[in-house]
Amino acid sequence: MPVEELIIRTPGAGLHEITAEVARAVEASAVQDGLCTVFIRHTSASLVVQENADPSARHDLDAFFRRLVPENDPHFTHTSEGPDDMPAHIKAALTATSIGIPVIGGRLVLGTWQGIYLFEHRARQHRRRVVVHVVG
Amino acid sequence: MPVEELIIRTPGAGLHEITAEVARAVEASAVQDGLCTVFIRHTSASLVVQENADPSARHDLDAFFRRLVPENDPHFTHTSEGPDDMPAHIKAALTATSIGIPVIGGRLVLGTWQGIYLFEHRARQHRRRVVVHVVG
Amino acid sequence: MPVEELIIRTPGAGLHEITAEVARAVEASAVQDGLCTVFIRHTSASLVVQENADPSARHDLDAFFRRLVPENDPHFTHTSEGPDDMPAHIKAALTATSIGIPVIGGRLVLGTWQGIYLFEHRARQHRRRVVVHVVG
Repeated sequence: MPVEELIIRTPGAGLHEITAEVARAVEASAVQDGLCTVFIRHTSASLVVQENADPSARHDLDAFFRRLVPENDPHFTHTSEGPDDMPAHIKAALTATSIGIPVIGGRLVLGTWQGIYLFEHRARQHRRRVVVHVVG
Repeated sequence: MPVEELIIRTPGAGLHEITAEVARAVEASAVQDGLCTVFIRHTSASLVVQENADPSARHDLDAFFRRLVPENDPHFTHTSEGPDDMPAHIKAALTATSIGIPVIGGRLVLGTWQGIYLFEHRARQHRRRVVVHVVG
Repeated sequence: MPVEELIIRTPGAGLHEITAEVARAVEASAVQDGLCTVFIRHTSASLVVQENADPSARHDLDAFFRRLVPENDPHFTHTSEGPDDMPAHIKAALTATSIGIPVIGGRLVLGTWQGIYLFEHRARQHRRRVVVHVVG
């Protein structure tokens, strides 16, 4: 059962497209018909399938989540790892840790306007581990 | 590996049940024990498993998301596709693009009160493509 | 195809770790390389992968969702099952009903700080059914 761990270096908070890396792992698996699962091994970054056309959509998405879960909320008690840590955990819970995408004819069945994104929630650069698993 | 693409016509925003269509695709696959993945090929509509009994629960759910992500938010910059487009992308990120449901004895293991819904976030009618994939 | 239904007794609202129960079901399946799907058969409780180290992170997460979706919102019409019911459905839609986790070498590929949690949204104790399914 083919599996690959991607190491994604994120420059900071925001959406980072990983569609090409996932597609490459699916291709390397040589699976023609099956299911690809993308799983992120962190709780302060997450996954999201979003529009891959206009960058303004990703900008607005990221900005919405910043307003919904602002830093320095006086309710937070988990503050020892920095003001961006607790909002990161909440944003991760509101989005996805794993996404299943069918593979047909050796290709992910993504729609025309869909891209796969690593949603980095921490302010500083990180090295993220994403498992791409294909059931053939 | 059986796979089917459903074409779902949505009359407008809100929750549209697709449990019967998904169950039919699982039945057609003839898989007795396996995993069914439901994947929507869009970023302005999404999937959600919700209560199938009282329609008021779906109404309140849809209304909550409209209040959480209102149209015409002055922060939005991605506005060229209409006032309902950016809220649609955000609502899709807050819910699910794919859902995995185990199949036992040829049937989805949904709980008694669970239904599968296509959550349409655009105001106008749309033709949505949903892939139902079964690993046997 | 190995499958197991866990019965989880929740003492009330909040995050209840089920990592050990899921890992045990994966071990019992004897699958070395595959995909584990965790599926909750309810719409007023859900699943989330969260930090397993500091309990304050789970406390803040639960408290955030209570503020985001407060009880007794005058907009709610689905109120016959109690003030905690409609918020429960919304919180379930905002988190996950199913999570796919790859299995490698007989073990879930969870990151060091990741735990699997049943997120109980109802105030009173419940008996929750969670299906753990492994494709080998």
